[in-house]
Amino acid sequence: MMGIRALGVSLRSQAVLLCKRTKAHSCARRGDIRGVYPPIATPFTRTEEVDLEKLEENVQKYGKIPFRGLVVQGSNGEFPFLTVEERVEVVRRVRQVLPKEKLVMAGSGCESTRATVQMTEQMALAGADTVLVVTPCFYRGRMDSRALIHHYTQVADSSPVPVVLYNVPANTGLDIPVDAVVTLSQHPNIVGLKESGGDVTRIALIVHKTRSEDFQVLAGSAGFLMAAYAVGAVGGVCALANILGQQVCQLEDLCLSGCWGEARELQYRLIEPNTAVTRKFGVAALKQAMEWFGYHGGGCRAPLRPLSEAEAKELRKDFSSNGWLPHSA
Amino acid sequence: MMGIRALGVSLRSQAVLLCKRTKAHSCARRGDIRGVYPPIATPFTRTEEVDLEKLEENVQKYGKIPFRGLVVQGSNGEFPFLTVEERVEVVRRVRQVLPKEKLVMAGSGCESTRATVQMTEQMALAGADTVLVVTPCFYRGRMDSRALIHHYTQVADSSPVPVVLYNVPANTGLDIPVDAVVTLSQHPNIVGLKESGGDVTRIALIVHKTRSEDFQVLAGSAGFLMAAYAVGAVGGVCALANILGQQVCQLEDLCLSGCWGEARELQYRLIEPNTAVTRKFGVAALKQAMEWFGYHGGGCRAPLRPLSEAEAKELRKDFSSNGWLPHSA
Amino acid sequence: MMGIRALGVSLRSQAVLLCKRTKAHSCARRGDIRGVYPPIATPFTRTEEVDLEKLEENVQKYGKIPFRGLVVQGSNGEFPFLTVEERVEVVRRVRQVLPKEKLVMAGSGCESTRATVQMTEQMALAGADTVLVVTPCFYRGRMDSRALIHHYTQVADSSPVPVVLYNVPANTGLDIPVDAVVTLSQHPNIVGLKESGGDVTRIALIVHKTRSEDFQVLAGSAGFLMAAYAVGAVGGVCALANILGQQVCQLEDLCLSGCWGEARELQYRLIEPNTAVTRKFGVAALKQAMEWFGYHGGGCRAPLRPLSEAEAKELRKDFSSNGWLPHSA
Amino acid sequence: MMGIRALGVSLRSQAVLLCKRTKAHSCARRGDIRGVYPPIATPFTRTEEVDLEKLEENVQKYGKIPFRGLVVQGSNGEFPFLTVEERVEVVRRVRQVLPKEKLVMAGSGCESTRATVQMTEQMALAGADTVLVVTPCFYRGRMDSRALIHHYTQVADSSPVPVVLYNVPANTGLDIPVDAVVTLSQHPNIVGLKESGGDVTRIALIVHKTRSEDFQVLAGSAGFLMAAYAVGAVGGVCALANILGQQVCQLEDLCLSGCWGEARELQYRLIEPNTAVTRKFGVAALKQAMEWFGYHGGGCRAPLRPLSEAEAKELRKDFSSNGWLPHSA
Repeated sequence: MMGIRALGVSLRSQAVLLCKRTKAHSCARRGDIRGVYPPIATPFTRTEEVDLEKLEENVQKYGKIPFRGLVVQGSNGEFPFLTVEERVEVVRRVRQVLPKEKLVMAGSGCESTRATVQMTEQMALAGADTVLVVTPCFYRGRMDSRALIHHYTQVADSSPVPVVLYNVPANTGLDIPVDAVVTLSQHPNIVGLKESGGDVTRIALIVHKTRSEDFQVLAGSAGFLMAAYAVGAVGGVCALANILGQQVCQLEDLCLSGCWGEARELQYRLIEPNTAVTRKFGVAALKQAMEWFGYHGGGCRAPLRPLSEAEAKELRKDFSSNGWLPHSA
Repeated sequence: MMGIRALGVSLRSQAVLLCKRTKAHSCARRGDIRGVYPPIATPFTRTEEVDLEKLEENVQKYGKIPFRGLVVQGSNGEFPFLTVEERVEVVRRVRQVLPKEKLVMAGSGCESTRATVQMTEQMALAGADTVLVVTPCFYRGRMDSRALIHHYTQVADSSPVPVVLYNVPANTGLDIPVDAVVTLSQHPNIVGLKESGGDVTRIALIVHKTRSEDFQVLAGSAGFLMAAYAVGAVGGVCALANILGQQVCQLEDLCLSGCWGEARELQYRLIEPNTAVTRKFGVAALKQAMEWFGYHGGGCRAPLRPLSEAEAKELRKDFSSNGWLPHSA
Repeated sequence: MMGIRALGVSLRSQAVLLCKRTKAHSCARRGDIRGVYPPIATPFTRTEEVDLEKLEENVQKYGKIPFRGLVVQGSNGEFPFLTVEERVEVVRRVRQVLPKEKLVMAGSGCESTRATVQMTEQMALAGADTVLVVTPCFYRGRMDSRALIHHYTQVADSSPVPVVLYNVPANTGLDIPVDAVVTLSQHPNIVGLKESGGDVTRIALIVHKTRSEDFQVLAGSAGFLMAAYAVGAVGGVCALANILGQQVCQLEDLCLSGCWGEARELQYRLIEPNTAVTRKFGVAALKQAMEWFGYHGGGCRAPLRPLSEAEAKELRKDFSSNGWLPHSA
Repeated sequence: MMGIRALGVSLRSQAVLLCKRTKAHSCARRGDIRGVYPPIATPFTRTEEVDLEKLEENVQKYGKIPFRGLVVQGSNGEFPFLTVEERVEVVRRVRQVLPKEKLVMAGSGCESTRATVQMTEQMALAGADTVLVVTPCFYRGRMDSRALIHHYTQVADSSPVPVVLYNVPANTGLDIPVDAVVTLSQHPNIVGLKESGGDVTRIALIVHKTRSEDFQVLAGSAGFLMAAYAVGAVGGVCALANILGQQVCQLEDLCLSGCWGEARELQYRLIEPNTAVTRKFGVAALKQAMEWFGYHGGGCRAPLRPLSEAEAKELRKDFSSNGWLPHSA
């Protein structure tokens, strides 16, 4: 992995950033979620059992990167493939291994409100500091503001920990309407939104219209992290942070310290790798690239398939052409 | 409810139809799924518990309609809102109540292949004659032919009962590619497809390209049931059959007996009620209309909401303007 | 080309059909548009000028096929690439060459209402019997029922000839709402709809809700022609009829005479060739295939490009695998 | 209209900005397009004729705002509704009235390559400094990289003035693929892209991958102008600049001078008004709001309709709730 120096950031600006980061993270009110989070992958054994040992080894490494915390059992954790028990167990183990000062944000969304309420409670018992609740989506034609406000209000009313809304249209095929987000932002136990749709106008509008509330917006992808910071987001849940964690944190620092020129240069180089491990090739690519960067990735549960050789080659190129891997021989 | 006579079908043609129907249903090979199925709703108590008594009462009524069988725990059964145990229990109860000669086609699809394999086995143990396996969809960007062929092959290899593919893009946001359907049609334990997308060209092409296999296509909605029969489908899984069961069976009969003129007249009158209880207002409307027609409907589990007054009024109009309910005072 | 015999239709049924066809086409009221139409292509010279000679030769051949008429300057005529003068001139030439009893249905849609009004008048002067008016679409976000009803009413009010609505979402990105079609069907100078979207439920509903008016629906593609007939359409405007004109007319005959079994067999074999020259490869493929079947096709105007070798090979296979061309050596 | 002071920008920062702006605009190479442009509307008389007098009066006012120039006959100029002659005449008049140092960027895109080539030549003769060429879109299924690269290369080869690519998926239903943009950026006569899609990740990637070329990216909307600047865009073509021109220029200044905090506050207040005059209500709303702010707006050509009363009220609220209009009595 490249050092910070290679990215052209001076030591002095590092010092400034460190200071800002500390400040940013230390004075946090309950439910302050600002910062960078990798939505961690779930390693499996060859027979597709959850591999808790490899999970713990990954978490130990992540613990040394200046992340605000980890998102556990989000989309990149293959949550729809795990049983209720597995989802909870993964969160418990992460909490045990991760340093105390780091947040565990646990994905607890299910299709029904009642299942989400129960899962949320279990996640809190397992040690989650916050829960990330994806929109129900199977009946997307009926998931209007009325339904979503009711759903999230029920969940937040009963949740022992703060709730973060999770909008990810690439997976769910729906967007939480802005008016619903605004209404929900007024709930004392709803503290933010992870917005993965990539529409920065929407992000800005949500920040604008929720600013009188204790409500924070996290970018859902490294591809538009800098733009999101520019318009008022306060962090990011970035799949790419599983692989280039230091760099994503550095991008955060550059944005927080107003070094927009440097931030832009770094942002540019993260776009193609990020797209490759998300929209283009998905979780299988994320896990493949994790292997190249010293983490345990491994295979996905079926029906997700390993990358084809051509896909793996293209994935590698998306990293190497941006200077993150040597060009292959 | 209107009698058959009111629909203008003579007694003689009824006799012919009865004969055809009997023949159609009696000489069935293993895995022959032709016929009409209501995808039954799951009644809940006021506290959103599964109401098995009401379920049984509905099933007893459905048992007297010339359906081929029932689809249990499909999309209209709110399967994503039920636990594994609830899904299985509902199927078990339906099997106990339903006359032996009627098929139970049980929804057993889950997001992961392994969960689908297990659910399929449990459904078979609970008495399902066939399983209906919806496409996994959360990672829809990666659900290409390769992934879907692998998924369904694994499931079919291990399933104790025949497997029916289930394509429902309105819920899943994806279509099983035709080439994948063709490949899968060659599996000895995959016997058909429920196609809910409404693209009749696609239906015709699939019938055409799978005709050398023991493979049958069912229309997934009453809105295009007649057109689907015209191009070679052999039945339908129709939400509207929960309400206008006799009429949907009559439409089947008219198609099978080549009474296309009468079929067309009946088909026309089913479109708006069908759209109302599916695409337009969804399961909540289905359950509301069931109440009007003497079945137990009741509420849905959250996050699905009851219809607003305006919606209920429009729903009623979609039935009354087509002669299925009296015009309201 | 294959003879009718090869398609397995007996002489007797042919005789019946001929009779029906004659009757169907002879007693037509003004504005009766039932029947099959190829939407003819516009041949160009190597320098992309309209090649009127080749156009006329094609039209002479089409004149001998039992089409109801020709659609001139529709989407397959590359109308958006022609100047106003070219569009009118092409229609004039077709009218001169085509036998009198055949209809010329001329595409006269433009983005603005005023341009459409003028073009419609010019088309009538050039000899068009009917005009086919595509939905304006550049400002599709605002093309709601109100705007479309206003547009078509203005055009129909001033048109010297009957107007046919033209819905083609693959090109325009919008659907005329059903309620707008129903309202417009009441206009005395609006006589029908060419529906190319392929949603047979929509076709059936429109037929149902406009049946008290003199209003006819034509299928906009050979892929769902039979299904459209089944639910009440009275003809088709089919790109494939430029190539397999006799066969598309035969499919019409089989549907009109109630030979649904034979119709189905023929319909199956038309789907892949039809998709190839429409959705899959577009006008360039239509023109390429026309060359194989003895018509003048040639190139398209830029920016449409000729097929790549691989595409041409796949196109050929879509015809040969359905028995319309010999398998290549 | 509000003064700059009201927006909280100090005089000193204004001075800095003025300096930057002058420098930015003065040392421009041929084809340097940086800066803010309103895509001006076309006023019509009551009989829908182009109203050149009102056009000129608007242009005179725009001439006093620190725009880089005007986009004439873009989507907001209703170009698809104008004849070739009208399009050219409008550009000629604008050029005559607009101060020499301001650029005229003229929309010259047509569906066919040959028409675009001719229109481009005519626009240059009419005084356009640059042409803005929208993607052809009627045959969008075939507008792949190969077709678009061919199209734009032909146009740029023959154009007397520099060419700007124009990507506006809301109107065209297609995106120029990034690889096509990168290839086209190498053409010596293609100088930039107007990107209206709002995907800031795409904007950043295009800036990144074209940076070795003389190629500039303009944001196509005020909604994401600040974010676009943050990732390397150098200006914007913003419908809202027709109404709040000073404010959009001020947003540019704040971005150029690195006053991101102030920029953000201003950006927030522009989003809802911008959405209202673009995606939500379109050109009719733009023209309505122009009237409120002292410009000639008036009606659109049909089929675009005037706003309903409810729409006009909502439009007004989108301005007033952000402080740009007094709240209505």
